[in-house]
Amino acid sequence: MSAGLLERFDRIIARKGYANRSEAIRDLVRDRLVGEEWERGDGEVVGTLTLIYDHDAQALLMKLMDLQHEMHARVISTLHVHLDAHHCLETMVLRGPADAVHETADKIISLKGVKHGKLTATSIGEFLT
Amino acid sequence: MSAGLLERFDRIIARKGYANRSEAIRDLVRDRLVGEEWERGDGEVVGTLTLIYDHDAQALLMKLMDLQHEMHARVISTLHVHLDAHHCLETMVLRGPADAVHETADKIISLKGVKHGKLTATSIGEFLT
Amino acid sequence: MSAGLLERFDRIIARKGYANRSEAIRDLVRDRLVGEEWERGDGEVVGTLTLIYDHDAQALLMKLMDLQHEMHARVISTLHVHLDAHHCLETMVLRGPADAVHETADKIISLKGVKHGKLTATSIGEFLT
Amino acid sequence: MSAGLLERFDRIIARKGYANRSEAIRDLVRDRLVGEEWERGDGEVVGTLTLIYDHDAQALLMKLMDLQHEMHARVISTLHVHLDAHHCLETMVLRGPADAVHETADKIISLKGVKHGKLTATSIGEFLT
Repeated sequence: MSAGLLERFDRIIARKGYANRSEAIRDLVRDRLVGEEWERGDGEVVGTLTLIYDHDAQALLMKLMDLQHEMHARVISTLHVHLDAHHCLETMVLRGPADAVHETADKIISLKGVKHGKLTATSIGEFLT
Repeated sequence: MSAGLLERFDRIIARKGYANRSEAIRDLVRDRLVGEEWERGDGEVVGTLTLIYDHDAQALLMKLMDLQHEMHARVISTLHVHLDAHHCLETMVLRGPADAVHETADKIISLKGVKHGKLTATSIGEFLT
Repeated sequence: MSAGLLERFDRIIARKGYANRSEAIRDLVRDRLVGEEWERGDGEVVGTLTLIYDHDAQALLMKLMDLQHEMHARVISTLHVHLDAHHCLETMVLRGPADAVHETADKIISLKGVKHGKLTATSIGEFLT
Repeated sequence: MSAGLLERFDRIIARKGYANRSEAIRDLVRDRLVGEEWERGDGEVVGTLTLIYDHDAQALLMKLMDLQHEMHARVISTLHVHLDAHHCLETMVLRGPADAVHETADKIISLKGVKHGKLTATSIGEFLT
């Protein structure tokens, strides 16, 4: 790697609080491995799905609940925070084959009334030594 | 205390895994203090409200969501577990004056469609040294 | 039932927000059924264990984490709320045979450093029609 | 937009389960708005931080707990799932000025022993009509 590249990298990892460069590079490698696990599609992965929605959207609430129960083997649990009198944040822990988790998340994010939805891909951890 | 009483108490605390009698007695005292905090009514307490309900009970879902948002300053967050294709367990962390927390819990437990509801009284901890 | 008994009962359920007496009586019956499920000991139940502890109690943290992982088939998930700079509230959803859930809860509550712990017994719901 | 671009976009949104194109475009716009909220830096945002770590990493546990309590005004609550006998998934709901939330997340992700960490940026919702 060029000195310039390393220098910029070192500035970023210092700002992010890493103790040293090798710790930061290990995190990059693990992140890539997580990406690979998800791309394989059939391996078991874990993800968190974060949603913002308006609790007044009654039809949405029904569909959300139905989908979560339909997929109950995949939705381990859900944390719900009431942001204000109208807005909810919900974060669901999903587990299963990567393709299935993606499909569940897509179905939920695309529901009318979900104001913002993001699937965060992570790993059950056994390949991240 | 009579030897008989102590003996029975020691048998119970051994079964429950306490290392010694004074640890078990301290827990009894703290539990009583928590009870007192709740009975005073106006002090700040924390409680968890555990509910079992059928996710198909649509009217209930709407009311639950409305009540939680109406009380959003009191409902810190909610953990939702999908027990099977029909049943939900929800556990809410409530914080506020004891009387208000009780009132919120009562309103929710008495909703039609809640199959089982229990408020667990606990404390913000500062009096439990 | 005597008129006096009913009258007092009606006053309580009005205060608790029940729409009518039969709804309140059904809740009493269900609560008793949950009690029976737990007393049988070998049937599958669900409970929530609520703990207050000081996050500075490092030895406790280690033991809590170890116990939860040892029992990971029983501990479905845990919600953690930081009450202030020192106190934590943790509520765990436990599932399994009643005796085993009780044993897990007892082990955790009796740990040195847990300031308050309560197991709330509830049901997976299938007997609570 | 070219017909080819629209065609590819329509294929993607069909696969993702959107009912129509305008719903999908609205989601893109909202996602961009969330990005802007975070880039401004001083506006109030919400994010979820997802971590995978080994529960045997005792030093990490202590630091995680300390950081969460130090930042307790920002960490609304945490959901903990025991993936297996060794691995934990933790998802924290963080709220505060975007820069401060980022900083908290960076500090936590860079801790030695965190195997995978991702901050998911979202919004308190009021700008996402």
